[in-house]
Amino acid sequence: MNAIFPGSFDPVTNGHIDLIKRASKVFEKLTVLVMTNTNKHGLFTPTERAKLLADAVVDLKNVKVLVFEADLTVRAAQKLGAGVIVRGARNGSDFESERSIADMNYHLDAELETVVLPAVGEYSFISSTLVREVAHFGGNLQGLVPQNVARALKEKMC
Amino acid sequence: MNAIFPGSFDPVTNGHIDLIKRASKVFEKLTVLVMTNTNKHGLFTPTERAKLLADAVVDLKNVKVLVFEADLTVRAAQKLGAGVIVRGARNGSDFESERSIADMNYHLDAELETVVLPAVGEYSFISSTLVREVAHFGGNLQGLVPQNVARALKEKMC
Amino acid sequence: MNAIFPGSFDPVTNGHIDLIKRASKVFEKLTVLVMTNTNKHGLFTPTERAKLLADAVVDLKNVKVLVFEADLTVRAAQKLGAGVIVRGARNGSDFESERSIADMNYHLDAELETVVLPAVGEYSFISSTLVREVAHFGGNLQGLVPQNVARALKEKMC
Amino acid sequence: MNAIFPGSFDPVTNGHIDLIKRASKVFEKLTVLVMTNTNKHGLFTPTERAKLLADAVVDLKNVKVLVFEADLTVRAAQKLGAGVIVRGARNGSDFESERSIADMNYHLDAELETVVLPAVGEYSFISSTLVREVAHFGGNLQGLVPQNVARALKEKMC
Amino acid sequence: MNAIFPGSFDPVTNGHIDLIKRASKVFEKLTVLVMTNTNKHGLFTPTERAKLLADAVVDLKNVKVLVFEADLTVRAAQKLGAGVIVRGARNGSDFESERSIADMNYHLDAELETVVLPAVGEYSFISSTLVREVAHFGGNLQGLVPQNVARALKEKMC
Amino acid sequence: MNAIFPGSFDPVTNGHIDLIKRASKVFEKLTVLVMTNTNKHGLFTPTERAKLLADAVVDLKNVKVLVFEADLTVRAAQKLGAGVIVRGARNGSDFESERSIADMNYHLDAELETVVLPAVGEYSFISSTLVREVAHFGGNLQGLVPQNVARALKEKMC
Repeated sequence: MNAIFPGSFDPVTNGHIDLIKRASKVFEKLTVLVMTNTNKHGLFTPTERAKLLADAVVDLKNVKVLVFEADLTVRAAQKLGAGVIVRGARNGSDFESERSIADMNYHLDAELETVVLPAVGEYSFISSTLVREVAHFGGNLQGLVPQNVARALKEKMC
Repeated sequence: MNAIFPGSFDPVTNGHIDLIKRASKVFEKLTVLVMTNTNKHGLFTPTERAKLLADAVVDLKNVKVLVFEADLTVRAAQKLGAGVIVRGARNGSDFESERSIADMNYHLDAELETVVLPAVGEYSFISSTLVREVAHFGGNLQGLVPQNVARALKEKMC
Repeated sequence: MNAIFPGSFDPVTNGHIDLIKRASKVFEKLTVLVMTNTNKHGLFTPTERAKLLADAVVDLKNVKVLVFEADLTVRAAQKLGAGVIVRGARNGSDFESERSIADMNYHLDAELETVVLPAVGEYSFISSTLVREVAHFGGNLQGLVPQNVARALKEKMC
Repeated sequence: MNAIFPGSFDPVTNGHIDLIKRASKVFEKLTVLVMTNTNKHGLFTPTERAKLLADAVVDLKNVKVLVFEADLTVRAAQKLGAGVIVRGARNGSDFESERSIADMNYHLDAELETVVLPAVGEYSFISSTLVREVAHFGGNLQGLVPQNVARALKEKMC
Repeated sequence: MNAIFPGSFDPVTNGHIDLIKRASKVFEKLTVLVMTNTNKHGLFTPTERAKLLADAVVDLKNVKVLVFEADLTVRAAQKLGAGVIVRGARNGSDFESERSIADMNYHLDAELETVVLPAVGEYSFISSTLVREVAHFGGNLQGLVPQNVARALKEKMC
Repeated sequence: MNAIFPGSFDPVTNGHIDLIKRASKVFEKLTVLVMTNTNKHGLFTPTERAKLLADAVVDLKNVKVLVFEADLTVRAAQKLGAGVIVRGARNGSDFESERSIADMNYHLDAELETVVLPAVGEYSFISSTLVREVAHFGGNLQGLVPQNVARALKEKMC
């Protein structure tokens, strides 16, 4: 079964990487989709985010990274021939949001399943938002993001 | 990828059936495991539960139902050559319990992944506990459980 | 519109009393139902609980207290000609349980509505379970339960 | 007892309609208030929202729809002679927000009660935010919003 | 042990004051830090907020109020020689956010501990956001904020 | 300030040990209280639990372990001259329970404060209940409990 893992990834964190690794073991092919949400002003452009992500998961042979022009997630899945949407959740509030989105996607395409991967404890506190804040003030990024992302964050903040 | 779906299923509900159907589309083979939890006095015996479950999913060709002698879930997965544990969650509290169990199973066997399927809205209120209560007082079971389970519940309550 | 407020009330607390007062303003007639749940060993018998409750709400002219023989809540509502089930919730976990029960009751009788009253902050920590524990160790019950209940708890604990 | 149901309704969804129908059975008169929150840039103007809403509930004889100039909700209730504020909640997080708002309103006017209607499972995933997103990308709106709203959304998106 | 209590305090509420009083009993010295978050357009300037806060806690001899130039909270603690970060939480969702932030701060400085004070019931509904809204519409601020803050809010709204 | 950390500790886990270490840095003296809850049939006796706990924290010089005869926690604090109750919470549901208990204790003794330590991510899935289950089936206890507890669990299970 092929799967997609949609997200903002601004930037990708070690929490995302862990979810991608785990999903890549569960599914035959996994396409990570950098969604271009027009409402949010990103730190990195979608193309930059995809490049950073692709570099960080280069060793996972069945994982591909794509920028996805703003559209419904179910259409992304349909175009890519994927039957599963993968999402992560760190806590109960996260999960409740994911459940609403999953149900909406199910409403739009009943053939498409959503599976939620619970974040492993040691990554359960990492979010792109907190990472951007730490980077903004020059905090230590080790353990939070892949090394190429840490470098890119430091450059961006100069 | 082969998966297991462990649970008590006392009795199986339409919520479980929906999750099993969806998981059977996502994974090549799905083994539903009726866990024999020695702490709970069940309404049905594990063998009865497995029989009711197997009858209800007889049309799903890649689904098998087994009674699993009380043991760690990770050992069940190992014995059956499964790489994924499937669980359902109806709300934030459910998910928080599942996350702890998933993390514990990950601690015991880091090769084994847990995926959580969010319950579809229309099944999100059905639990075996509420079903047993409705059956106990002779309430209408239609829509809550498969027909064979409704019949078995009525007999059991006589 | 007539309403019922079902519960265990073992014993009734000031949190319950506040909910009953508020519900009695919202609905024409309110029947508080002491449910006789056979699974729980109560501290007080259902009859004792109803007596304590009735004494505590004697000033609320449109409130009646009844012991309800174990049965489906929807049947209680039907027998009493009530169109609404009133329940209280103190926090998110409480509400999630109530939502499942409300949905089940809606499934059993689509004419019957459930309304949830959010506990006022100052009563949001009081539960019958915590009250029984405080009473068990002779703690100060003032502010937690009506005075007649405090007296009854002290006698019961001797 | 008269009640108000305040909200943004940008646009009204089938989830709102279900709550309004249920509230209209519970209360003698129900006034749905389209709040004009100056902080949010709406998709529809308050007047458009009220028109769409009024058309969608035209069959409910005891329901009235009004635009309410930005003010405290408790003042809206006072002006309209309503004793109850009706709100819906879909999950635990929703409820926690509602409880804070209810307690604040209780602080401002202790005569005014808030009742929360738990969303029925099949509507529990629908929010105006998700509906706007689906409409933005031309997704299928059937089942999510009343037909007049679906038409208006399609026109607005052209 | 010295502690810091960081926050926006725009404006300080009676909920904050209660937490500060309680924390000032637990810790030898408590420094309340008005964080200057550049992303949020505040109602009061950081200096105004600190002045209002300092006036409101003038009787607490071991409490000091400082404006903190935007930086990592852990650096604030380090500069001030504090070993503990104090935060309040009103409900489960609040706590989940706090847990992520605490874990991030622990990652940045493992010598620094975070303790969460659960809001007392009667203050559990008060937030600066709701207070600003009530003030905006000229609602009664008594019981929500200290008197000097109520006066400042009224002036600001003119 | 002196603090108590009450709990069942049946058995103590690495999650508890981490909380105790952190609390021992925050407070001058910390007394860990093994509560003898008469309702639960423990795996270990209170005396055994206290012995295992004391051995595991022998290096923390300001930590003492005591068995506390079933009584109100506030009385334990009073007898021991402690001004703070320390508790841990792993997620939103945990916190909501702790908030109710904290508020009850505050009601019983307004001089006594409760502080909640959020569990660090990597320990956030460990509970005594899950540990007992893993031990029951002979699973690997490494990383979950101190070594002396692992040995005691293995002996107990023989």
